[in-house]
Order: sequence, then C-alpha cells, then structure tokens
Amino acid sequence: MKVNGYAATEPKAKLTAYSYNLGALGSEEVDIKVSYCGICHSDLSMIHNDWGMTKYPIVPGHEIIGEVIAVGNAVKNVIVGDKVGLGWTSASCMSCDQCMDGDHHLCSKSEATIVGRHGGFADKVRAHWSWAIPLPDDIDMSKAGPLLCGGITVFNPIILAGVKPTDKVGVIGIGGLGHMAIKFLKHWGCEVIAFSSNAAKKDAILNMGASQVIDSTSPKELESVVGKLNFILNTTNVSLDWNSYLTALAPKGRFHTVGAVLEPMAIPAFSLIMGEKSVGGSPIGSPALTKTMLEFCVRHNIYPQVEEFPMEKVNEAIEHLESGKARFRIVLKN
Amino acid sequence: MKVNGYAATEPKAKLTAYSYNLGALGSEEVDIKVSYCGICHSDLSMIHNDWGMTKYPIVPGHEIIGEVIAVGNAVKNVIVGDKVGLGWTSASCMSCDQCMDGDHHLCSKSEATIVGRHGGFADKVRAHWSWAIPLPDDIDMSKAGPLLCGGITVFNPIILAGVKPTDKVGVIGIGGLGHMAIKFLKHWGCEVIAFSSNAAKKDAILNMGASQVIDSTSPKELESVVGKLNFILNTTNVSLDWNSYLTALAPKGRFHTVGAVLEPMAIPAFSLIMGEKSVGGSPIGSPALTKTMLEFCVRHNIYPQVEEFPMEKVNEAIEHLESGKARFRIVLKN
Repeated sequence: MKVNGYAATEPKAKLTAYSYNLGALGSEEVDIKVSYCGICHSDLSMIHNDWGMTKYPIVPGHEIIGEVIAVGNAVKNVIVGDKVGLGWTSASCMSCDQCMDGDHHLCSKSEATIVGRHGGFADKVRAHWSWAIPLPDDIDMSKAGPLLCGGITVFNPIILAGVKPTDKVGVIGIGGLGHMAIKFLKHWGCEVIAFSSNAAKKDAILNMGASQVIDSTSPKELESVVGKLNFILNTTNVSLDWNSYLTALAPKGRFHTVGAVLEPMAIPAFSLIMGEKSVGGSPIGSPALTKTMLEFCVRHNIYPQVEEFPMEKVNEAIEHLESGKARFRIVLKN
Repeated sequence: MKVNGYAATEPKAKLTAYSYNLGALGSEEVDIKVSYCGICHSDLSMIHNDWGMTKYPIVPGHEIIGEVIAVGNAVKNVIVGDKVGLGWTSASCMSCDQCMDGDHHLCSKSEATIVGRHGGFADKVRAHWSWAIPLPDDIDMSKAGPLLCGGITVFNPIILAGVKPTDKVGVIGIGGLGHMAIKFLKHWGCEVIAFSSNAAKKDAILNMGASQVIDSTSPKELESVVGKLNFILNTTNVSLDWNSYLTALAPKGRFHTVGAVLEPMAIPAFSLIMGEKSVGGSPIGSPALTKTMLEFCVRHNIYPQVEEFPMEKVNEAIEHLESGKARFRIVLKN
C-alpha cells in the first residue's frame, strides 16, 4: 500500500511531500483512507523533537477521520467501508492487565500513531482494528477529528474524577483542549468557570458555555473562587501557582492535569489534607470511552470549533497554530 | 465543673499538675470522665508550639476514652453513663455544607480538642455531643483510645480512595499510625507491603499482617515493587522521593498522604498522566465513619499495639515517645 503524505525531515523543518510503502497488511490491522486530520500541539512537539523520540522523516497527524479501505483476516469490529476515527494510539497488546481491563490506552506496549510509524498528514494510515473507532452515523466528519485526541483527553478526566452535573468546575487554558472541555462540562450539566490569560478570547469562551472567565494572571480574581470548585481541569503545560488552584477547590475537590508540565508540581500536603483534596492526571482515553464520547457528542451536537485548511497547505496551518491564532482547533482536509 | 489535668506552661516544658474550671455546660455539650487517653505526635507538636497556635497553659490529649457524666439540655445521641470516645475534634458548627453532608471533620468552624481548649491528659473533658462517639459494647477500652485520632486518620483514606480487598497496598512509616493502617488493610483483605527504614521493627511488622517489609532507604528494594501497588498510604511527615512511590503505583493507583510534610511535594505531572494516578490527602474522619470504624475494629478484634502508663507518669510516657521507643502507641490510664 503506497501512501502519499507530508513529512518533516529534521527538527523545525517545513513539511514536504513524502511517499512511502506500508508493506503487507497485518492480520489484525486496517488501512484507513484519511478524509480529515486535526493538528494537535503534540504534532508540533514531535516535529521539533521536543521529547527526544522523533525519528525522521516523520509524518505527523493523529486526529484522523476516514474510511476503512482494507482489513486483515483477523480484524474484528470494523469492515471495509466503515467510517472511523483514529487518535494518538494505533495499537496496543490486547492481552495485558490494562488491555483486558478495557484500559488499552494504559497498555505499556501501546504504539502511538506518530511515534515509530506515520500519521494522518497523508492520504492513508494504518492501525490495529481496536483503535479504529467506528463513528456514529450522524457525526459531522469535518469537525470530528480533534475529538479523537484533544477531545478524549479532556473527556476522560470527567469520567475518572466522577464529575457530577451538580458540580461547579474550572478549566485552565482555553485552547484546543480547554474549549472542548468547556463544551463537554456545560453539556454535563455543570457550572463552568474558565481560567484564561487571554482577554481577547473572553466573548468566545462565554459563547461556548462558560458562566465566567477568570483572568488566571490575577491573584485577586483567583481569590474570588476560593473554596468553590469541585473539579479543576488543567490543559496547559506550564508551571502554575498550584496552591492557588488547590485553594479554589471546595472540600473533596479534585485537580486534574492533562497538561504535561515538565517541572515537578509543587503540591503542599497541607492543602490536600485539610480539604480531602486530590491531584490527578491522565493521558488520552480507552477505545470504549472514545466511542461513548462520540455518541455523547452527536446526541448533544458537541464539536470543536475548527478552522479548515486543505492538506496541501499543512505548513500554513502549522504556522497559524504556532502563532497562537488558531480558534480553536485546525483540521486538514484531503 | 472542676478538672484536674496536666499542662505544659511553655514550649518544651515538662507537664505539671494543673486544675481549671470548665464553667457552665452548654446546652449541646457533654462532660466526659476520662478513663484512658492516647498520646499522639500532634500532642508533642502542640506542647512545643511547632504550629504556632499553642496557648499556654495547654492540657494535651485527644485520643480519649471515657464515660459521659453530664449532658446539656439539647444533647442528642448520648446519655449520662454512656461510654464514648473523643478524638482530635470536639465541636463543629452542625449547619454548614460539610456538616450537613456528614463531613463534620471538614467544617471550617470546627474546634480541635487541644486548640483553644483543654484535652484528655486530665480527669475530665468537655465536647459537643456529636463528637462524643458511642463505643460498641464489646470494645476493649484500654486499647481503643488511639483509634479516635490515629486510627480514624488512617481508616478514612481507605474509604476515600475506594480501596478494594483485591488491592495490593503499601504503607509508608510504621509507627503509631502506620501500624494501625497495616492492621486495617490486612483485615480489608489486601496484600500489604510495609515501607520502613527501621530494620529492628521488621518482625513486629510482619506479625501485624504485612506480607513484606521494604527498606524505604534502599532504591533497589523500592524498585522491586515498580508498577505493583494500587494504593500507598504515607504516614510520615518528611519529604520523600515522591516519584519513586508514584512509580511503585500500578496504573490508576492512588498515593495518599496523612503526613503533613511541610515542604511542598514535588510531583511530576508526567507520572500522574501516563498511569492515570493521583495524589490525595486527608485529616481525621467524620463522626459517622469513626463509629463505623469502631464497629469494624470490634468485629475483627483490631486494636493498636499499646504501652500503658499511669496518667501521673505522663512525662515519662512523653519521653518514651520522643525517644522513638514506643511500640507502637502509648495510652495513659486514669
């Protein structure tokens, strides 16, 4: 199977046309014709080798919407012609404790779509059948791509932390991930408070369903929510004044980060102890939960706010994202 | 009501006989004749004014077992003659969201037994009726005192973290609190691994029900449990190599501290994210849970391992504790 994609050949390089052959299809694998692919910040990190694990050339892209065009002889669950989504992970072992428990995304042998393999900035992509998530019939494929990585990343914490419709919640950082978190939590029934340092986004954030936007750089505004929030989701990957946010939690409140801050988080034990609070984190989510999320999205008409670029303008799209101008997620169209 | 107790009159002072009058009994208050009182490390902290909130003279003691000898006219739940236990907290507002939710121990207006009032190193003590926990009939009063503070402090996390009988768990620091945690978790059905830096305690720890004692100062021994534990309870209040313990957690594992480490805990977000792990904390527990714990203790014959001193030898008892020789909790007897 020959694939035509766009690859970076070295750190910081512009992407250039790149063709490659996927070889023989494994018995449990499927090939997917890519219709749309979102651009995630982790694509940029991989292009720039920020995590030291990039092998060049690399074809980024892991928020993929497409159609199954070939299946191996042991594939389950999907058939040729099915519309599917593919996210950060393309394969897991299927037999370890985590996989057997439904937590395939925690499998230590899982393979990421753009680590050691090629992703969705291309016309085709290959994956294990378990990660080719069947799409609900009525989904808007042009907007669904970002749900497969950014979306499930902020949906999973809502489940993990047991967020209730009666909860008051906060979302820190209203970008690609944060804006989807606001939409999910609003439809969850929660009162949602957004923490943003960008005043220019305020109206858009209120339109998404937040009841209030708090300037995260203002200690005074942070003080106005002391003790009020049952759940705070952090989508940024910079060091924050963690204790301010722990203080914003109500008793028994849960702080959850999906932003992989590099510096260790300085968490005062006393803040955890006195209010029975906790700090957790999570990566993406399981295939089963991704399917559930997609059904929830269709039922409530929840989609990321996307800007569409043709696949061949991938470099323009990346520049737009890197300049901080994306509102709020970019999708490439084949 | 005249009380005869033992008080410290300044930081580091020996305790001396001290009499005081409790004044008129409030309508919701009870007076308790003290039969036994455990000694907790926080008594020492208060004697030494480690937390800057001690008012001298101070009568310490907040692991109290005794008998109700007087009740105000609006007291509920207990009557004169009832055997009761009293722990860290002696009163809470009864009407805030936390109290109304059954979390009286998280009430922001709660009053600690030895902060701004006098505790159980005395012949009598006063409390709000809600914190005078009725004792199960068959309890061994001579050993039950430490359950009221140390015991509930390590029991509550088992409930909060949803520990299951099938879990493998770890306990860090096998002193007054840690040894009770081992006993609870063993009777919970768990496989319990103890982390201790004191080799001399090893046999005693295995006798309590731990299946293994790991030298917490040995990186190699810590490595032997990487990825294995569903729950780790920290009872120490010193800075640890937090990431080693996060690494010892299995996917979805929960690290919980009841030790109030003064230095912020340096928690790598990446460790939380990749394994969906969390770090939490808690203080004591609610009156309802304390009652439940006492019933569980009687049903399973779970008691702290205590050394008894007569109340008048309180200074000897304190010296014994401060020297690190206590095995594992000291109780004063009136």
